[in-house]
Amino acid sequence: MSGSRPELPGTALAALIDHTLLRPDATAGDIRRLCDEAREHRFFAVCVNPVWVPLARDALSGTARVCAVVGFPLGASPPESKAFEARGAIAAGAGEIDMVLHIGALKERDEGALLGDIEAVTGACRAGGALCKVILETALLDDDEKRLGCRLACRAGAHFVKTSTGFGPGGATEADVALLAAEVRGAGLGVKASGGIRTADDVRRMVAAGATRIGTSSGVRILAEAAAPPEGRTTGRARPLAAGEREGRST
Amino acid sequence: MSGSRPELPGTALAALIDHTLLRPDATAGDIRRLCDEAREHRFFAVCVNPVWVPLARDALSGTARVCAVVGFPLGASPPESKAFEARGAIAAGAGEIDMVLHIGALKERDEGALLGDIEAVTGACRAGGALCKVILETALLDDDEKRLGCRLACRAGAHFVKTSTGFGPGGATEADVALLAAEVRGAGLGVKASGGIRTADDVRRMVAAGATRIGTSSGVRILAEAAAPPEGRTTGRARPLAAGEREGRST
Repeated sequence: MSGSRPELPGTALAALIDHTLLRPDATAGDIRRLCDEAREHRFFAVCVNPVWVPLARDALSGTARVCAVVGFPLGASPPESKAFEARGAIAAGAGEIDMVLHIGALKERDEGALLGDIEAVTGACRAGGALCKVILETALLDDDEKRLGCRLACRAGAHFVKTSTGFGPGGATEADVALLAAEVRGAGLGVKASGGIRTADDVRRMVAAGATRIGTSSGVRILAEAAAPPEGRTTGRARPLAAGEREGRST
Repeated sequence: MSGSRPELPGTALAALIDHTLLRPDATAGDIRRLCDEAREHRFFAVCVNPVWVPLARDALSGTARVCAVVGFPLGASPPESKAFEARGAIAAGAGEIDMVLHIGALKERDEGALLGDIEAVTGACRAGGALCKVILETALLDDDEKRLGCRLACRAGAHFVKTSTGFGPGGATEADVALLAAEVRGAGLGVKASGGIRTADDVRRMVAAGATRIGTSSGVRILAEAAAPPEGRTTGRARPLAAGEREGRST
């Protein structure tokens, strides 16, 4: 997949990005700055912890979506807690919910528990008109576990699978993005690559591997870098993104 | 404080320990093993993610307490989500709730938001007859912020302050435990030291600094080490713990 890095202009790049700030010590001022940057650079969404949804909604006033994480980052709260948190975030203005699935249940291939876990949140999202992304935390999984997580996310009516929380032992890899994309493509889900994505080249590699959304806290730097490409960068063939690839399954 | 390490016999050591497993990929088998160890070694409690409370309650059948973490480890979910999660965990069998406070609000000295955050959980705990510990994540705070967190935990009716989640940039230090203990002692709260505690000597240092409960995933090894002390260890004066020191404020 290394030979096919799409050449993304800044606007297309920005429209792929969930501009992300999930540090536990982020303040209201930090969240306002994040939203200002999202307005200015036209990022697709901001991705924040659920306590910040009302502030982000007010600061953005519709210029970008608000994405809230749920059961984050460990995924080890009960389905009803994740659903409650999702409903609260949607009621407060979130249009997208990134939930962490119960990784221990995935390790045990407990499909009933996993479906219950994901469906609790997809149900809340469907009722509230929000997108649901299922975070697999791929760095903790073997390939069979990644595939099973994808299949269950499809069955439970999620809109995206997402690689990583950014708090685990590793982030997105091209191989994982390609594996996830192959597994969910038939069902029309998107793939969000996240964790360790810090450069425009990282974004291009992830998109070439099949990512349709990018989660990163380095969006502003990535856009600046894309606007002034470094000397000697080899570019792959141009590959404009279709709208469906950017959006994942529509609500 | 280095000269006053209490000599703790194994039973007193075990009675101080919340035997902890919070890894996101822990399985039901791992939690059963944790509970077996807690029964065998008479740890005070097991500390688990909330999805595991029913399993831990059944596995322990009253031989040790079940402690569940809430809003963990980022503390950045709204008070009502933390309260919901706490009520669910208590209904499922948790006797203790370790909540992470909203660190961003503490950074901004937003006392109203912080009191609302802690009181949402202490209210749920009071209604359910459970203890409430407030995790400050001291490695992210300056000393003034640590003191303010302690004062608000006292005002909100918590039973313990706790240093660390184990997922932050640092764990318990003797200096932080001493600072917390000095701040909450007058109100009768306990201090739980957690994060990076891996040896019997670590436990002794924390207790000497003022800790009344220890959170660690190394409890079994710590007891084995305490039973067969290494050559050349210098011991401080014996200082038996009073019951009140072990328990923190009673429910």
